[in-house]
Amino acid sequence: MRGGWAPAWRTLLAVGVGVAAEALAGWLLRRRREGSALREALFFPSRATCVEALLAEEGGGPSPGPCDCPLPHQESPLSRLLAHLLAARRSLDLCVFAFSNPQLRRALLLLHRRRVHIRVVTDADYMALRGSQIGILRKAGIQVRHDQETGYMHNKFVIIDKKVLITGSLNWTTQAIQNNRENVIIIDDKKIVDVFLAEFEKIWEDFDPTNYTFFTN
Amino acid sequence: MRGGWAPAWRTLLAVGVGVAAEALAGWLLRRRREGSALREALFFPSRATCVEALLAEEGGGPSPGPCDCPLPHQESPLSRLLAHLLAARRSLDLCVFAFSNPQLRRALLLLHRRRVHIRVVTDADYMALRGSQIGILRKAGIQVRHDQETGYMHNKFVIIDKKVLITGSLNWTTQAIQNNRENVIIIDDKKIVDVFLAEFEKIWEDFDPTNYTFFTN
Repeated sequence: MRGGWAPAWRTLLAVGVGVAAEALAGWLLRRRREGSALREALFFPSRATCVEALLAEEGGGPSPGPCDCPLPHQESPLSRLLAHLLAARRSLDLCVFAFSNPQLRRALLLLHRRRVHIRVVTDADYMALRGSQIGILRKAGIQVRHDQETGYMHNKFVIIDKKVLITGSLNWTTQAIQNNRENVIIIDDKKIVDVFLAEFEKIWEDFDPTNYTFFTN
Repeated sequence: MRGGWAPAWRTLLAVGVGVAAEALAGWLLRRRREGSALREALFFPSRATCVEALLAEEGGGPSPGPCDCPLPHQESPLSRLLAHLLAARRSLDLCVFAFSNPQLRRALLLLHRRRVHIRVVTDADYMALRGSQIGILRKAGIQVRHDQETGYMHNKFVIIDKKVLITGSLNWTTQAIQNNRENVIIIDDKKIVDVFLAEFEKIWEDFDPTNYTFFTN
């Protein structure tokens, strides 16, 4: 009978197409998830490599052309870290215990010039040590707050554009980058990023300078 | 005409069912993903809480009943961390710079008695300091290796049963747990866990004691 299928066959066709579509959708979703979710790990120590190409805009003038320094011109854990930081477009929220590495300071100054909103929380004891880059950041107009607690502000995490979290054991020191065994993970999982954002805001408020006590003796 | 649909209608029905099934499958997949993936963040300092219930099996005898110590008997970042560690069934691979906290040492000894295979990598300088728990682990028969490098073994990460990663800024010290601003994340993302496992194996081999140099002067 032309054009006339039994109801059972119509149901089977619909179910078959549905099952196939479900399988396809599942595969596509898993594939999209695998492909797009940011989940990267960096391990240190990192051999010193040239990162001038990444920081080339720094001077504000035209690109200075290929760098002829003797360091290897290749990717390294430090260059990956810098690349993630320099991808910031709107905001960079940083908690870091020790900050003495000049390349990472240059990256923050570059972002500051690009009008990325930067907030830095650091440890009061460490920031006073020789080699700390915190003073340079402050002089450039970047907001910095520090603890006034008996414990250390020992976190080392960054949130980029409120969407990407970088955390781990790595302080922002050349010693740590070039000599220590360290790890950093970079993820954009919304659930994790959001709780770190909330923690950053909490620490930022806890360390509001209007609450600082200035000891006079 | 009973039982006779035009081909266009049959196609539309199939497409409609397919689209609905795809939407449903996507929703279910996202929901399953949200529900099952382990993505937890712990922030310190943690107020001191009683963790005796978690470590109750430690003596090997019957449970000693409710603890009547004066500490609060409630969940805390430390109790969450202990619970994740004590969930280990087969293996626990730990890299930690400083380890002086007695509760965490007790957790490792408890797992060791449960025949969980434990490997510990630590920093040579720190492990010799007063309060270090490394000697107690070694005496109990837990394998420990340490660096012999100019840099520090500054990692603080654990891999549980080769499936769950715990990493962050937290050293395993009471100072860090109770006084410092610290973060720890706990995730079971296979891609991240696998690269940390590979890094652990690399460090474990790098610090093979047959390569240790014993200075005699």
